[in-house]
Amino acid sequence: MDMEKVNSMGFGEFVDVFGNVIERCPLIAAAVWSQRPFSDLEDLEKHFSAFIDALPQSGQEGILRCHPDLAGRELQRGALTAESQREQSAAGLTSLGAEERLRLAELNAQYRARFGFPFVLAARLSDREAVLRELARRLHRPPALELRAALGEVKKIGRLRLADLVGADPSRL
Amino acid sequence: MDMEKVNSMGFGEFVDVFGNVIERCPLIAAAVWSQRPFSDLEDLEKHFSAFIDALPQSGQEGILRCHPDLAGRELQRGALTAESQREQSAAGLTSLGAEERLRLAELNAQYRARFGFPFVLAARLSDREAVLRELARRLHRPPALELRAALGEVKKIGRLRLADLVGADPSRL
Repeated sequence: MDMEKVNSMGFGEFVDVFGNVIERCPLIAAAVWSQRPFSDLEDLEKHFSAFIDALPQSGQEGILRCHPDLAGRELQRGALTAESQREQSAAGLTSLGAEERLRLAELNAQYRARFGFPFVLAARLSDREAVLRELARRLHRPPALELRAALGEVKKIGRLRLADLVGADPSRL
Repeated sequence: MDMEKVNSMGFGEFVDVFGNVIERCPLIAAAVWSQRPFSDLEDLEKHFSAFIDALPQSGQEGILRCHPDLAGRELQRGALTAESQREQSAAGLTSLGAEERLRLAELNAQYRARFGFPFVLAARLSDREAVLRELARRLHRPPALELRAALGEVKKIGRLRLADLVGADPSRL
């Protein structure tokens, strides 16, 4: 898909295609459509990031709260979005042993209680050992720093999803 | 459901319950959770409105673009949210004759082309004749005024959905 195609989309088609670039937040793709035309994939991605950065803190936390736990109840119930299912699977989170799953559930619960949003990580760039290590590490960071880090992960996830949709090599972004 | 119950919810449950108060925008409920505790239903509703008002214009337009057309393709395909299905049904939009449906589709297309978002109306407070009349009237308004009017409808829809969920009489809001 080239940018000419992207720039020719009406908002309905644009939201159908890009609505889950930010997990369960079609509002953001729908807002980004206002900024067309886009010069290239990087430009498109910058508008997603800029929208996130311009939100009040409650809105930024809201984005994080629309994300599922890693290896959490949505995965168990088969209720993940297609993108999230693929990403958690790539990190090996769909085939954890009982002990690892329990350990992850405990850490996720501690993280949610401390920060008021779930632990978000670009799972495709990680694996099960790294997920557990990173979660244990981030659990003890100051909340303001952790909010920035978590939004950085949201943007990484979005960049990878955009590259998938537009067919680019994500390492070039 | 009393406010004590609402205020006791974790963000996961809160988003499960209130995630579609603003159509297809769980991000907004997830952001509003940051403002708890809520003193009463009116207070809860004010936080939804305040979040919408604080968004940049692209975000406000984004909210509108997450709404389906009235009697449009989502209704034909059975792809409406449960709330929207009920509201469009209450206004008689699920049982239009072929001619009315065509007329509405034409006006919806003109509206989308003019404003860059779909025609949004609190359908439960309307009926099929009023929907057509109102759409024809609003089609010719200045864009800035129409954006305000459309967001007013989003808030009306949200107020009615909140009242349903919390079990209050919406006329008291």
